[in-house]
Amino acid sequence: MSRRLVRTPEPPYLAVIFTSVRSEDEAGYLEVAGEMERLAAEQDGYLDHEVTRNRDGMGITISYWRDEEAISAWRANAKHRLARKLGNERWYDEYEMRIARVERAYSGPRTLED
Amino acid sequence: MSRRLVRTPEPPYLAVIFTSVRSEDEAGYLEVAGEMERLAAEQDGYLDHEVTRNRDGMGITISYWRDEEAISAWRANAKHRLARKLGNERWYDEYEMRIARVERAYSGPRTLED
Repeated sequence: MSRRLVRTPEPPYLAVIFTSVRSEDEAGYLEVAGEMERLAAEQDGYLDHEVTRNRDGMGITISYWRDEEAISAWRANAKHRLARKLGNERWYDEYEMRIARVERAYSGPRTLED
Repeated sequence: MSRRLVRTPEPPYLAVIFTSVRSEDEAGYLEVAGEMERLAAEQDGYLDHEVTRNRDGMGITISYWRDEEAISAWRANAKHRLARKLGNERWYDEYEMRIARVERAYSGPRTLED
């Protein structure tokens, strides 16, 4: 976890929003999650990601990608496919995946109200 | 905070992704954040929202909206404008706002690998 927000380029780009509720099965989760973060970062078209999780197990992970081709290639990655299979079988009570096109963005704090 | 994920309609709809790092100024924050959640939920075109925050103060809030008109009307709300002003002046060390169009979505866990 990091207090720094990520930097993304000027829109448009894509955001993969993964909201989830973790199960109580901890075995292997942190190792695989860490490996997937490292592996995703090596993919062509990966921009960055952010993740937060409440103490009750609800979390939001957002990864940012250049285009649909980058997302498709990452989905086809064999290690990523195995990790998703394990996630479906063991690690999540519930999740929702949303693929969204970021149309505009701005940073703050800003001195003036817009 | 809730372990339940929200339910959104079939895409397309809009997601306002607010990633932030909280300041150490706690005064008024929780009250105003709660009031804004209640007030947003009353707006025409509001769909739902999800929020998670790490113990170090980094958080992600995503609100879902029917269309741009709904987002614009909420931005113009006087109480919301005041809350944003206070947020800019006091409550956030850093934030990024992204407006994104959700193009597709699916729920899990799923039994079969896709």
